[in-house]
Amino acid sequence: MKQDRVERVLKKLSGRGLSQMVVCDPAAIFYLTGRWVEPGERLFALYLSRKGNHRILINRLFTVPEDLGVEKIWFSDTDDSIGLLNRCIDHREALGIDKNMPARFLLPLMKLGAAVQYLESSDCVDGVRACKDEEERERMREASRLNDLAMAEFSRHVRPGMTELQLAASMEEIYRGLGAEGFSFPPLVGFGKNAAVGHHEPDNTVLRDGDCVLLDVGCRKNGYCADMTRTFFFRSVSDRHRKIYEIVRRANEAAEAMIRPGVQFREIDRAARSVIEEAGFGEQFTHRLGHSIGIEVHEVGDVSCANTEEVRPGMTFSIEPGVYVQGDVGVRIEDLVLVTETGCEVLNHFTKELTVLE
Amino acid sequence: MKQDRVERVLKKLSGRGLSQMVVCDPAAIFYLTGRWVEPGERLFALYLSRKGNHRILINRLFTVPEDLGVEKIWFSDTDDSIGLLNRCIDHREALGIDKNMPARFLLPLMKLGAAVQYLESSDCVDGVRACKDEEERERMREASRLNDLAMAEFSRHVRPGMTELQLAASMEEIYRGLGAEGFSFPPLVGFGKNAAVGHHEPDNTVLRDGDCVLLDVGCRKNGYCADMTRTFFFRSVSDRHRKIYEIVRRANEAAEAMIRPGVQFREIDRAARSVIEEAGFGEQFTHRLGHSIGIEVHEVGDVSCANTEEVRPGMTFSIEPGVYVQGDVGVRIEDLVLVTETGCEVLNHFTKELTVLE
Repeated sequence: MKQDRVERVLKKLSGRGLSQMVVCDPAAIFYLTGRWVEPGERLFALYLSRKGNHRILINRLFTVPEDLGVEKIWFSDTDDSIGLLNRCIDHREALGIDKNMPARFLLPLMKLGAAVQYLESSDCVDGVRACKDEEERERMREASRLNDLAMAEFSRHVRPGMTELQLAASMEEIYRGLGAEGFSFPPLVGFGKNAAVGHHEPDNTVLRDGDCVLLDVGCRKNGYCADMTRTFFFRSVSDRHRKIYEIVRRANEAAEAMIRPGVQFREIDRAARSVIEEAGFGEQFTHRLGHSIGIEVHEVGDVSCANTEEVRPGMTFSIEPGVYVQGDVGVRIEDLVLVTETGCEVLNHFTKELTVLE
Repeated sequence: MKQDRVERVLKKLSGRGLSQMVVCDPAAIFYLTGRWVEPGERLFALYLSRKGNHRILINRLFTVPEDLGVEKIWFSDTDDSIGLLNRCIDHREALGIDKNMPARFLLPLMKLGAAVQYLESSDCVDGVRACKDEEERERMREASRLNDLAMAEFSRHVRPGMTELQLAASMEEIYRGLGAEGFSFPPLVGFGKNAAVGHHEPDNTVLRDGDCVLLDVGCRKNGYCADMTRTFFFRSVSDRHRKIYEIVRRANEAAEAMIRPGVQFREIDRAARSVIEEAGFGEQFTHRLGHSIGIEVHEVGDVSCANTEEVRPGMTFSIEPGVYVQGDVGVRIEDLVLVTETGCEVLNHFTKELTVLE
């Protein structure tokens, strides 16, 4: 167990009037124990208690030989895992519940009368996770450093006549070759008008001269995620597309320039959005400006007009303004940033100059 | 909406005394609507009602222009999506809940008093999904046909001195080249003693003469999953390893030979396990014999000693006995099978003869 992180979570639980919690998000358990398990449909749960009698429930299918600093309760597929979890819980108290606990575990636990009340309390974990400690900051820097190197390789792989799928298929090996553990999310590759479609998945669309080439990609390193978008043009760029590109770039830079502790997330969103609105493309910027990131590619907390929270040192999130003209072009420019004591460190260093690939 | 599938789900709900249900598993919504959306942390929910006033709640971020045959309720990141869902629900009735609905949606919905009772009712969807219809059977055959072709290519890629990661990194492009949509799960590649470790992820282990090469791999095609394991040997095979291989092969074949409607899942597990136990390796076969598969690589229902359910026509599942000798070797041989009216069709045709790669 990462004792300092566990202590901070318990303190937050205490502040919510809670003495116990069940954590079952694999990413949260990785954060607290250093061990990642992919449980699939099986139960994998860390029970935390202010009394200190923490327990971790693990299916025998998963090989976890090392001492995690917390008592392991092993079970098999044929065991009553919810019953075992229920036995850990103080039934006379309220119970904090992981935001991602699925109904197939939560409803039976409630039926057993595990606690007097059930409160979604992942904010007690997520609030601690939001501000990365020194080890995490270094891992975030390293993941983005690899992503910068990978983006350069991807851009060199672009060839006339290739499809989005072909470009996407080359990426995993490039990441692995750089020492990454794999993707942090399936890469988004959009040529031409496909780049204007939200969450477009790479398909057999063939690259043509004058197309934009939108690459929204990330790798994972030491358990931490990178995430960056660059939009290139292939062989030529029209004046209109160049204009759109420069608007998006200015929006990205305006947001990054104002990030420092104490600024509200919504003010950062506003800074970028104003640039795009004033240029007349407000309707074509259809999503929030960014999202928190760390062990997961999307962590709690976003850079949106609705988030009045203030930015704090150690927070890491994306800045990704975009303009999407349906049937024509999509441009998005995304960096990750790390909030420092006095401002912010942009974790991506790959150029944002408009680049025409040959 | 796939009306016949929806009707069958509603009938099962009725049998449980339920008049309404919230489905929020993307795979289940794909099954019922034909549309796959990856909602990430956002709400994506299909409300089904015996009264016929079905609704689907979709975030504006997801591009779903087509008519799904069900009224769409669009929302943005800043909207109260749970409040919108609550407005669809008949509060005077019980509500069926998707097994995968996360606590962050379920607990607030309960707090709003959405229903008089909450029952995990995914079995009403999963029970229908369990028996594949003709369109689905054809898709399952096609995915496994591609997986057979891919396995042949993977085995030709094995080279002296290569690492597990290098072999794994070549796989996605091979699948895509064959026309698959990508992996159905991240490939498992185990050389030598790594093959004995449950859920071992490919790492930098280098292939050596005499190693076993365990490949547990699958692709997705038309939304349906393949999943197959073959265990090769590299350049030589010891008598002991050959003996273990033949035990596992006999276990695989004994199980497949007895599959027909009316047989219990646990009897199939027993058939394979008996072969391995009688050969003295019962302790080294540490998991259930198989799992159901379809749109998801693991669907509800497994081939285990605990499952007394009878096999029915249209069911598709894996048969994957294994023997794992820690520190030495792991052998698993896995096929997918489709239950027919009179027996079963083995969907994989890649050889199970012991193969020594050069």
